[in-house]
Amino acid sequence: EIVAAIEARLASGPLAGRRIVVTSGPTHEPIDPVRYIANRSSGAQGTAIARALVALGAEVVFVTGPAEVPPPEGVTLVKVQTARQMHDAVMAALPADAGVFAAAVADWRVAKEATSKMKKTAGGLPVLEFAENPDILKAVAGLEDSRPALVIGFAAETDDVIRHATEKRARKGCDWILANDVSAGTGIMGGTENAIVLISDAGAEEWPRMTKTEVASRLARRIAEALEAG
Amino acid sequence: EIVAAIEARLASGPLAGRRIVVTSGPTHEPIDPVRYIANRSSGAQGTAIARALVALGAEVVFVTGPAEVPPPEGVTLVKVQTARQMHDAVMAALPADAGVFAAAVADWRVAKEATSKMKKTAGGLPVLEFAENPDILKAVAGLEDSRPALVIGFAAETDDVIRHATEKRARKGCDWILANDVSAGTGIMGGTENAIVLISDAGAEEWPRMTKTEVASRLARRIAEALEAG
Repeated sequence: EIVAAIEARLASGPLAGRRIVVTSGPTHEPIDPVRYIANRSSGAQGTAIARALVALGAEVVFVTGPAEVPPPEGVTLVKVQTARQMHDAVMAALPADAGVFAAAVADWRVAKEATSKMKKTAGGLPVLEFAENPDILKAVAGLEDSRPALVIGFAAETDDVIRHATEKRARKGCDWILANDVSAGTGIMGGTENAIVLISDAGAEEWPRMTKTEVASRLARRIAEALEAG
Repeated sequence: EIVAAIEARLASGPLAGRRIVVTSGPTHEPIDPVRYIANRSSGAQGTAIARALVALGAEVVFVTGPAEVPPPEGVTLVKVQTARQMHDAVMAALPADAGVFAAAVADWRVAKEATSKMKKTAGGLPVLEFAENPDILKAVAGLEDSRPALVIGFAAETDDVIRHATEKRARKGCDWILANDVSAGTGIMGGTENAIVLISDAGAEEWPRMTKTEVASRLARRIAEALEAG
């Protein structure tokens, strides 16, 4: 890994000298000491993106939740559990030239984490109340001084993908949204392939169905072009 | 694995000819197509127990949720996700001489699983309501005709271990409870060691802190003795 890190520093390539923050994986939000809320993100897409950016010479800070796939080599690795931890790690990693927010961050956390295990009670069932987690993508996109030149989010949608993703881009204030359809039957969530629509100020650009590795390479090249042009 | 299965069938040993159902791992309870509630069980203890039972010649049906550790060899493997699926798989595996219920089964499931991804709304935060899951240990212990001669449950407690576990044994109607303290700082949940208190009609027997493999071997020997005596 040390060798890989040195190679990344010395790498030539269109992203040499660029610092990019990538988030990846799910977050885990504790309910009590033994239970937590998770999501089905494997971390495969974020990991592939980080690897592709390193291959083009970028210095990558990789902030990851508890993912199934091992983290890439040649990155600065920051491991977190919760959305709030991820938020803080991202802010600590700035400034950067670009941010790619591929993690499936929990929108909510449990409002009151129990300090001892919740018991079955004779009477009622528990009701979980939630508090909103920090919105990492929106927070970074809205930064006054240290906003990366290119802020990229993802949208995992189960219906009306382009409309929802376009609205999300406006709401978050980010530059690009990579949207995909994760509804049952597509096999994308947890799978090896992805079907992306890139939403930018130029509109919606549909990419053909390709592997997550190919999505990562294509995105890395597009990031290099955009930073070059900007 | 075929070889291992044949070996298990042919094995001599104190549990040869005995059929034992072992549950292991966490269950995952879906909230919507991307989110679920999980728990921190790694499946390490249940897997070690199944392996120890096979080593003593038992025929083991291993019903497991999505565990971190790979399943043992030489067992009949049944993979499930939810508590309801685990319940049905256990019932289908009976009759058996003994049942070891080491899985960390979710007590509750989400009452209404959403069919599309829950959205952040401008207004309120979501509130999750729960429905009670089937109580597998209690259901098996209460079976009229096909109750295994020896029904063994686990209790993961964060405080007042012996009292809570003794109450649990009475409430469930099972023969033995293996209780342990999973409160923060013990490092047991997800770790390699376990500190067990065996609750039976003879009272509470504290075992020294030992590895999960040693717990498994000791339990398997005790099961063999109990079935022999019974």
